[in-house]
Amino acid sequence: MKTFVLITLTAAALSAYSEENEISKRIIALEEAALERWMNGDVYGYLELYADDVTYFDPMLEKRLDGLKELTKLYEPWQGKAKASSYEMIAPEVQADKNTAVLTFNLISSVGDIIYKWNCTEVYRKEKGGKWKIVHSHWSCTKPELK
Amino acid sequence: MKTFVLITLTAAALSAYSEENEISKRIIALEEAALERWMNGDVYGYLELYADDVTYFDPMLEKRLDGLKELTKLYEPWQGKAKASSYEMIAPEVQADKNTAVLTFNLISSVGDIIYKWNCTEVYRKEKGGKWKIVHSHWSCTKPELK
Repeated sequence: MKTFVLITLTAAALSAYSEENEISKRIIALEEAALERWMNGDVYGYLELYADDVTYFDPMLEKRLDGLKELTKLYEPWQGKAKASSYEMIAPEVQADKNTAVLTFNLISSVGDIIYKWNCTEVYRKEKGGKWKIVHSHWSCTKPELK
Repeated sequence: MKTFVLITLTAAALSAYSEENEISKRIIALEEAALERWMNGDVYGYLELYADDVTYFDPMLEKRLDGLKELTKLYEPWQGKAKASSYEMIAPEVQADKNTAVLTFNLISSVGDIIYKWNCTEVYRKEKGGKWKIVHSHWSCTKPELK
């Protein structure tokens, strides 16, 4: 009986691990695809990923921005403009629950000789149809040199 | 029949709304309590809230910090030191699922004449015993004036 319980528990743990692993791979792939488009001047990769009720921070804003409509207004003027020479996503980590996945990573990007270092948080939520959408995004400068 | 379905759906929607509202109040109260302790020099309010697998960004770090052990090493030297003259949590917003709640807010704090402006993301997860813990925290400067 004990062996049976142990095997059942181990199988359940392995299944949970495998599910988390699957979610993790999927989320990183979604982010990489949106990032690749962004770094080539296409803002719609991210805009298509954001949920209607997305909340958003970046270092250029005075305060949190709320909702896809506002974020679209912020992003669309950048279409075709925000092109990077190179970029690298560093140590992506996903903390996943069944319907929520928190992706965090550091990012180094360069435009010509200028190097940008970022901290990034993306909270993904599994929507009713099964699609994952970003409900919260927080971009900030890594160790900014302040005036 | 239609009326019955409508009443049932409305009751379910109200119940979901009420649950989300309850979670929202609880999460904001947890954060306010930890913040109050932090602003009075007590780092253990937050340390007691962080989960073992917490991931963390702040503007003083070179990269993401992983795990409560590392975060404890970072915070403990600040015990009794980080005292604010005043602070205000601005527009806290909670995006809640059953077991995950994303709290975001802006914060203005002052130490003497110096004013600090922050963007903050806290991702809370409901643990097995029913306690809410922070699994991810991201603090950054609001619109930093870079060198």
